Amino acid sequence: VVPRERLTPSQPPPLRVVIWGLGAMGRLMARLVLADPDLRLVGAVTRQAGASGAPSDLAGLLGLEPAAGIPLSPSLDRALERAGGANVVLHATGSFVAEVAGQIEACLEAGLDVVTIAEEMAFPWAQSPDLAARLDRLARERGHTVVGTGVNPGFVLDTLVVLLTAVTGHVQSVYGRRVNDLSPYGPTVMRTQGVGLDPDEFARRVADGTVVGHVGFPESIHLIARALGVKVTRVEESREPIISTVRRVTPHVVVEPGYVAGCRHVARGWSGDLLLVELEHPQQVRPEAEGVETGDYIEIRGWPDITVRTGPEIPGGIATAAITVNLARPVVQAPPGLLTMLDLPLPRGTARRRPEVLRDVRP
Amino acid sequence: VVPRERLTPSQPPPLRVVIWGLGAMGRLMARLVLADPDLRLVGAVTRQAGASGAPSDLAGLLGLEPAAGIPLSPSLDRALERAGGANVVLHATGSFVAEVAGQIEACLEAGLDVVTIAEEMAFPWAQSPDLAARLDRLARERGHTVVGTGVNPGFVLDTLVVLLTAVTGHVQSVYGRRVNDLSPYGPTVMRTQGVGLDPDEFARRVADGTVVGHVGFPESIHLIARALGVKVTRVEESREPIISTVRRVTPHVVVEPGYVAGCRHVARGWSGDLLLVELEHPQQVRPEAEGVETGDYIEIRGWPDITVRTGPEIPGGIATAAITVNLARPVVQAPPGLLTMLDLPLPRGTARRRPEVLRDVRP
Repeated sequence: VVPRERLTPSQPPPLRVVIWGLGAMGRLMARLVLADPDLRLVGAVTRQAGASGAPSDLAGLLGLEPAAGIPLSPSLDRALERAGGANVVLHATGSFVAEVAGQIEACLEAGLDVVTIAEEMAFPWAQSPDLAARLDRLARERGHTVVGTGVNPGFVLDTLVVLLTAVTGHVQSVYGRRVNDLSPYGPTVMRTQGVGLDPDEFARRVADGTVVGHVGFPESIHLIARALGVKVTRVEESREPIISTVRRVTPHVVVEPGYVAGCRHVARGWSGDLLLVELEHPQQVRPEAEGVETGDYIEIRGWPDITVRTGPEIPGGIATAAITVNLARPVVQAPPGLLTMLDLPLPRGTARRRPEVLRDVRP
Repeated sequence: VVPRERLTPSQPPPLRVVIWGLGAMGRLMARLVLADPDLRLVGAVTRQAGASGAPSDLAGLLGLEPAAGIPLSPSLDRALERAGGANVVLHATGSFVAEVAGQIEACLEAGLDVVTIAEEMAFPWAQSPDLAARLDRLARERGHTVVGTGVNPGFVLDTLVVLLTAVTGHVQSVYGRRVNDLSPYGPTVMRTQGVGLDPDEFARRVADGTVVGHVGFPESIHLIARALGVKVTRVEESREPIISTVRRVTPHVVVEPGYVAGCRHVARGWSGDLLLVELEHPQQVRPEAEGVETGDYIEIRGWPDITVRTGPEIPGGIATAAITVNLARPVVQAPPGLLTMLDLPLPRGTARRRPEVLRDVRP
């Protein structure tokens, strides 16, 4: 428990939070909300609710004792009925605007603000301008707010890049690279990144769209360009195989020499004939097997040049869950509309969560 | 000139900017404003205006051809009279709240928003709560906004630290270090950092307040704590000599072995019995003479830990001028009151300034 003397005076009452989607991200968010004296978890929506063998209370899903007193609900309506009202939905059910727009509309219709980790929602005008306009209109009509966030898109290769430009007199271009390790991930990630394939098969699957690489580059590029006051006139993306020269073993896959250890996904955003944004995200299993260090690297080229690196990379899972929960109150306090990370006050964490609630989920 | 196709549509009309204080920082700001299609420099206030031998137009001060058409004015009133109205003042005349409060009040009374680089204004409640309350009251009454910023305080060891906490589920403590090179600076900086003194004299001048070290640590610490939702109950500062083991030569000073090359200023912010914030700013001439690399280093300790470094350090002069100019529009758009970097939308630079106007001031 945070000692009383450390708490700031006149803290507003806790916000009432619903989590929609209880995969790995939603479950992490739930733990953070339960540990937070300024948030109250009042509902949890999951397709699994009521399935045979599924727990009926969130605590069962999280492996918590005793029960959290949060029933798992199959729909937002049912969750709100049980909760008797809420302020904000933390939304973690999918990646694409077309896939999540209906759920976000349901949240707005129910009078709730929304923070979503759907990657394309970080800047939905990039690839779905019509749906974005519709969501923005509905949000304004209802007087509520929607924002998309996450570790990336949402933070490392866009929000952090933008903040670093603030101390420059002129931006010529920006470059960002995020080098991570896919080893902890399961079969879905291995498939969408092409891990374990031979190079020809990798090329075929890039062509037919089953090897996806990173989701979110056009969104990050458009967000950066908007921040810098210029238009993106073209976005190019390439997905190349990272071919291993050594044997790489993870719990889910073995990559033999000559086979694909991951996907080097690069995106370039042009403004006229200026290469404004170049982002690179090589994702692979066991990068250290060939001496590759993980980390995030950002270079602002202008006056002055600024170079920043993290080491190791900002970890994807907890960072995505954390920034989502950390935005709950800013989104409730924001003006209505479909917003982006550019519209909110400086994002921030908290020193107020109860470490004893977090302890048993920490790695 | 930025090509038309790169400009975003429906850009609002340029803001009318007055710069108050034309030292090194104010002059850099003037160049950035002159290069910015979204800002219009309409006035310049300096004590030197009208002094014998002083230029009468800003262009003379900046070494620009042809004249900028901005007369140097000895007072804000005179500048506004000549300008026929303005939106925002970029203020660079001093470091301390008590020293600048009257000037900021004058700006508010004149119906202007203010961005100031006075270090203590980054969080004026830290050391001048009464003056801060008075400025806040006046700003709200007049419907205008004041914010303090700069490279540090204002960015490296506070704003950037806070943003990095946004991707954490819990913050235990934060640590920041800024290692820079004082070699380019002149006699005033050498004196306030104690460069060239013998260690005993350094100690005496720390005791009598003539060796100051960094101005802004209490402000950065209070700003971080407010962001994290906890109270600072105690701030401790120490200023130790960096004693050179080699000869260090700059245009302004020679430091012999055994003498002081700079000041290692450390500040700790406690929240109850928790060391929440530890900030370190060793400032010295020619750090490379003893193999010390310059750079900014930030560590967030919590879940997860996050480590970020810049290399070299974000350069102080242009960064301070740039973030001030970059905040002109956000401050005009912000709600009224005495605000901090925590209250504004994500700070950002621009790719719209005309490089040809900047070129001849760039190092």
